[in-house]
Amino acid sequence: MSPVGRAAVYPPDIPFQAQQARGKRYNATIGQITDGMGRAIALPSLAASLGALSPADLSAALLYSPIGGIPELRELWHRWHRPQDAAPSSLPLVTVGLTHGLALAADLFGGPDRKVLVPAPFWGNYRQVFGLRTGADIVPVPAYRDRQWQPTALAEKLAELETGEPAVAILNLPSNPGGYSPTREERRVLIDSLVEASEARPLVVICDDAYSGLVYEPEIPRASVFWELLDRSESLIPIRLAGATKEFVFFGGRVGFLTLPYETASPVAQALDNKLRCLLRAGVGSPVALSQVILAQALRNDAIDQEVAATVELLAVRYRALKRALAETLAGSDTVFEVPFNSGAFAMLELASGLDPEAVRQTLLDDFDTGVISIPPRYLRLAFCSVEAEDIPELVRRVVRGVESLR
Amino acid sequence: MSPVGRAAVYPPDIPFQAQQARGKRYNATIGQITDGMGRAIALPSLAASLGALSPADLSAALLYSPIGGIPELRELWHRWHRPQDAAPSSLPLVTVGLTHGLALAADLFGGPDRKVLVPAPFWGNYRQVFGLRTGADIVPVPAYRDRQWQPTALAEKLAELETGEPAVAILNLPSNPGGYSPTREERRVLIDSLVEASEARPLVVICDDAYSGLVYEPEIPRASVFWELLDRSESLIPIRLAGATKEFVFFGGRVGFLTLPYETASPVAQALDNKLRCLLRAGVGSPVALSQVILAQALRNDAIDQEVAATVELLAVRYRALKRALAETLAGSDTVFEVPFNSGAFAMLELASGLDPEAVRQTLLDDFDTGVISIPPRYLRLAFCSVEAEDIPELVRRVVRGVESLR
Repeated sequence: MSPVGRAAVYPPDIPFQAQQARGKRYNATIGQITDGMGRAIALPSLAASLGALSPADLSAALLYSPIGGIPELRELWHRWHRPQDAAPSSLPLVTVGLTHGLALAADLFGGPDRKVLVPAPFWGNYRQVFGLRTGADIVPVPAYRDRQWQPTALAEKLAELETGEPAVAILNLPSNPGGYSPTREERRVLIDSLVEASEARPLVVICDDAYSGLVYEPEIPRASVFWELLDRSESLIPIRLAGATKEFVFFGGRVGFLTLPYETASPVAQALDNKLRCLLRAGVGSPVALSQVILAQALRNDAIDQEVAATVELLAVRYRALKRALAETLAGSDTVFEVPFNSGAFAMLELASGLDPEAVRQTLLDDFDTGVISIPPRYLRLAFCSVEAEDIPELVRRVVRGVESLR
Repeated sequence: MSPVGRAAVYPPDIPFQAQQARGKRYNATIGQITDGMGRAIALPSLAASLGALSPADLSAALLYSPIGGIPELRELWHRWHRPQDAAPSSLPLVTVGLTHGLALAADLFGGPDRKVLVPAPFWGNYRQVFGLRTGADIVPVPAYRDRQWQPTALAEKLAELETGEPAVAILNLPSNPGGYSPTREERRVLIDSLVEASEARPLVVICDDAYSGLVYEPEIPRASVFWELLDRSESLIPIRLAGATKEFVFFGGRVGFLTLPYETASPVAQALDNKLRCLLRAGVGSPVALSQVILAQALRNDAIDQEVAATVELLAVRYRALKRALAETLAGSDTVFEVPFNSGAFAMLELASGLDPEAVRQTLLDDFDTGVISIPPRYLRLAFCSVEAEDIPELVRRVVRGVESLR
């Protein structure tokens, strides 16, 4: 645990005292503007935008959320996501989007010079979340060899560290930018290798499940690796970060969830929960009540499963269009190569050596009216999640022409 | 500036590249689920709760906000809050509630062993926001002498520090827990003393304007002290943190604003904005789009001024009820004393020496069905913002009876 993580204790001050006063006939603890019975006095201009909410939901949306999140939503999320046969895990804590959950995990388990291993290429913000904010030492671990995803990459790098030195590893599956999820066999090898690696050191595995559920091939497991890491080894501590962001198309709501690998009532879960609530309050006060209420309403609705499935199917159509376009356009190319992808929101293309992805990106912007993301030293990232299927073949053609123009 | 503040640089990665691709015919940069034209594909169960929003607002509410906030809302807030004759200040940056703005300011200007002076008694979370998170050294400065608010308290304590040592001072006016705003004359003395103090050192003054606008006496200035600190001294750097929390009764929305004391286009504002966006992205990803859209809708409405005024008047009625009840009930008491208050959401009572406020709180909970907040070593805090006016006389009677029962 980091120095900040060790020092964090939820203080017995105002929220604690207000909690004790709940239900008293005269309650002068609450620093909110209420009708004297604990209900919000909504401004008409705000309430007008939220007219579809019940009075109770409107009040809950306008007042502070409990620091750990609205209990009903925590239960709904728990039920929605947890496989039935998973080992015990905690009721999730609500965060301000998934990134905020990563930042809380970084506060707890990062800290000066802590090694944080990240399969590369990776989402650049890990550097800021773990490195800049806590002083942790980001260690990129090549995730691919010859355009083949390596399930033992993290374990091999961990084996190079001094025995006993605690470490953090990040698992982002489906991956950003790679769009990759392991096969059943690769998943087994990955999990076994992490369990074995945890024999040599305390190992925190951060499961960044941003793209969880966005899986388009029937033979690829959909549930998070987190559930299979539970209860495998005392010194292997998986932490799950998820968000109601992608599957629910609720990017702007900022509702994330942090799940601990222990039963909610256990002393270790209680101790970590206390520290996390302290850090959450110190960083953002409380999570967003409005977004939690809107999400809880959606999760109460029986139709939500089909609605999420329809979103995944929409992405699957775009995914298949991209697969097809790449197969047709890249066949025989010696400049642009497909990196295997099967899930998530993105695909990566690898450029032949000598080609600079940043130069390609600029050319595509300037001469081909086309935007992609460049990832040094040799990748482009294509977001198929936000391009209509019918546009994808032309997108791929322009990318290839852009690359060819720089040969 | 703190070590983290110095190191923070907004990275030229995905959001930066996505910004450059905006408007391109083929845009494969965006990691959101859109219709291919940049509009959200809303799940029906989510959209149902937000049915009163226009399609454009609904889409903006569901997708990521720009890291700095939605431009229209930043403009609306700027116009709503800024006095016409104020010196230049920046367009405010949107934060996840006011606490998040404090945390960003702490990241920039706190850091190991930095002295942060706070008038006491104070909101306890400052210890976590500045001390726990950044290692800053919280220095409580007694705000009252003989139950009289001291406008020069911060300057006197600053004068004890080594010349040249940078320092941070927090101004929370109207105050929590004190409910105090300075008179016109006290405000002049306060500001002059801070300007003078800044001759000896770089001085960051954090204006925590959580209760801004909640002022109930006509002769007490309502606008934030921030506006009068602008442009007074090169080495005096006021930072304004405000929230659409209290006046808008939008506690659950988590919309805060951070304003810098420089013109938006100036190099110093641009450099600080770059660092703040880096830290914001590293901590929470982006601010809450949904709440920003709801707030912007309210600010577009001509009725909003009257609605906010009605909220302030509701609190003024409770304030006057409390003033009256205290005057009647405490007259001649030698155990409970009123500490001057004129604004905000709270009033403080001082207990005669020998009385423990925590013991009083427990007695009130156990024997009087009444909840208050205890503040060691000798204060109780009463929240008049959340108690109906007609209940306030009995609340005060119970508090006094509770205290008397412990003599």
